Amino acid sequence: MIDKTIRMNYLYDFYYALLTEKQNQYMSMYYLDDWSLGEIAEYFHISRQAVYDNIRRTEVLLEEYEEKLQLLKKYEGRKTEIEKLKKLLQQGEHPYLDEVVRALENLE
Amino acid sequence: MIDKTIRMNYLYDFYYALLTEKQNQYMSMYYLDDWSLGEIAEYFHISRQAVYDNIRRTEVLLEEYEEKLQLLKKYEGRKTEIEKLKKLLQQGEHPYLDEVVRALENLE
Repeated sequence: MIDKTIRMNYLYDFYYALLTEKQNQYMSMYYLDDWSLGEIAEYFHISRQAVYDNIRRTEVLLEEYEEKLQLLKKYEGRKTEIEKLKKLLQQGEHPYLDEVVRALENLE
Repeated sequence: MIDKTIRMNYLYDFYYALLTEKQNQYMSMYYLDDWSLGEIAEYFHISRQAVYDNIRRTEVLLEEYEEKLQLLKKYEGRKTEIEKLKKLLQQGEHPYLDEVVRALENLE
């Protein structure tokens, strides 16, 4: 299980397009730009509790989208398979080995 | 541009988990099981127009999800890249060539 902040960063990256503008604002300030709850609250002239509640609800929503669409899970599955493939390829020689490995890394 | 029925089948496959139970029923009968609008209407004792409207609205919704998440577009991009990679690999020899190509096909 990856660390919660890293997981939320991934989930946010996959599903931000499904969030409202307000949810996107709070989440990007908190998770991407590393603002504190207090700083966000002050910036928007609302209570720290209101920011906290909004972010917690959005986190639950992101987990619900992941449960339904599994984009993070599938991404991690592809990443593992690509790593295995790279190792397999590097056990032999091939005229385009470097090119193939680079293209594989861009596939994720 | 792929044929509309094929496109809807793909979109439905990617996003069905975001639809309601009713939307899923109509869409799977119409697109996966190839029932006519009249047959679905008769089965649920509703008008053909009601089935038609529901399916059209769901199609719009699926296109909206695709606009936001682009799962079909990304899938097609990966498929094209994987085809290129397979062709590149087959231009040379490698002790695990068959295994790598098979694994690539499972990556999509």
